[in-house]
Amino acid sequence: MRDSFHQQLEHISEELTAMARLVELAVTRSTDALLTGNLTLAEQVISGDASVDALQKLVEDEAFEQLALQQPVASDLRALVATLRMVAELERMGDLAEHVAKIARLRYPDIAVPRELHDTFRRMGRLAATMVRMSGLNVIERDVAAARELMSLDDEMDQLRMSLFRATVDSSWQHGVEGAVDVALLGRYYERIADHCVSLARRVIYLVTGDYPPVEVPAIPTH
Amino acid sequence: MRDSFHQQLEHISEELTAMARLVELAVTRSTDALLTGNLTLAEQVISGDASVDALQKLVEDEAFEQLALQQPVASDLRALVATLRMVAELERMGDLAEHVAKIARLRYPDIAVPRELHDTFRRMGRLAATMVRMSGLNVIERDVAAARELMSLDDEMDQLRMSLFRATVDSSWQHGVEGAVDVALLGRYYERIADHCVSLARRVIYLVTGDYPPVEVPAIPTH
Repeated sequence: MRDSFHQQLEHISEELTAMARLVELAVTRSTDALLTGNLTLAEQVISGDASVDALQKLVEDEAFEQLALQQPVASDLRALVATLRMVAELERMGDLAEHVAKIARLRYPDIAVPRELHDTFRRMGRLAATMVRMSGLNVIERDVAAARELMSLDDEMDQLRMSLFRATVDSSWQHGVEGAVDVALLGRYYERIADHCVSLARRVIYLVTGDYPPVEVPAIPTH
Repeated sequence: MRDSFHQQLEHISEELTAMARLVELAVTRSTDALLTGNLTLAEQVISGDASVDALQKLVEDEAFEQLALQQPVASDLRALVATLRMVAELERMGDLAEHVAKIARLRYPDIAVPRELHDTFRRMGRLAATMVRMSGLNVIERDVAAARELMSLDDEMDQLRMSLFRATVDSSWQHGVEGAVDVALLGRYYERIADHCVSLARRVIYLVTGDYPPVEVPAIPTH
């Protein structure tokens, strides 16, 4: 049987995984809201972000309590500090999903994304949701191979974002400036969700191996 | 004379302030590079981000060492954990300044920002640099009034960003989709720098008072 400190650490990891699950739902729902112009769903994501924030506060309080009461050293200390950072990353991903939902709400009853880019955004939404889910599992399982696999998914996200960028600046673009600005910002939000997942994966690899994997050179050098 | 732990904490705070100074320079230079199309300056910001990252690593290592060796409790523990978060915020602001510089470089020898928006971006750059500088001082001085003043500056940033947004979607906009996308992303980068400063100020207020000030409702509800 594990001691009380390690039980508590596991408990906190499970809360992080629950938080990742909420964020994954927010990503999926905000993408659906965006592509179907579903106002109710968008509102749900926006109001639902409060539960992500509440979980963040809970995890932070618990981690602080463990830091203060147990005074962990070495790997336990690193794990707790990493937890505090991971929770901040997850909270931020929740905010980004909320941003997507807010664009959906703003454009309602129109749909912010032109028809010909729906597939791209659907793929970005699925990819982001998958990466968030893998991040959540990774927090508990600490599987370096899985963390590296997660990091490799980021390449596709970069390519999707590049394809959006190309579409908006192409001479055949017919959705004006406002449409291009929406697409540019939405693309940035999905990319940032993926970036946070990569950052989480790097922390997991660091916790297991003691080394940070090198930062990938982004496929889009510009934005 | 202060004990070794508190000397070390002060030492770390000074490094954070130095890091803030580097980030402030990066913000100022990237804005200059952006508005004057100065390629050398843009390259300097881009390659200079490595020193911000190196400082981050140094501060993190030192904070970890103190956590492990001194096993601080209560307010000392909170201060160290807050340090780890502040350093992450500063590193991120450095990245954002680098993003601005990369857009400047990408458009060279053109200038990414249309002439009529130069004043707005110049003001955003100055405001962001001021906020970063105040953040750096705040880390050492822990002055709640100054932290609140810093937070209040964010309103102007939100308004500046809203004015950019309006300009790009106005029927008189003459810089096409690519110009609008650049302006939208640039506006987002400056706004995020200011957001990170606000987040830092909130941490300082929390360290001093034990309470987090409420999050401001953003002036732009959409993006």
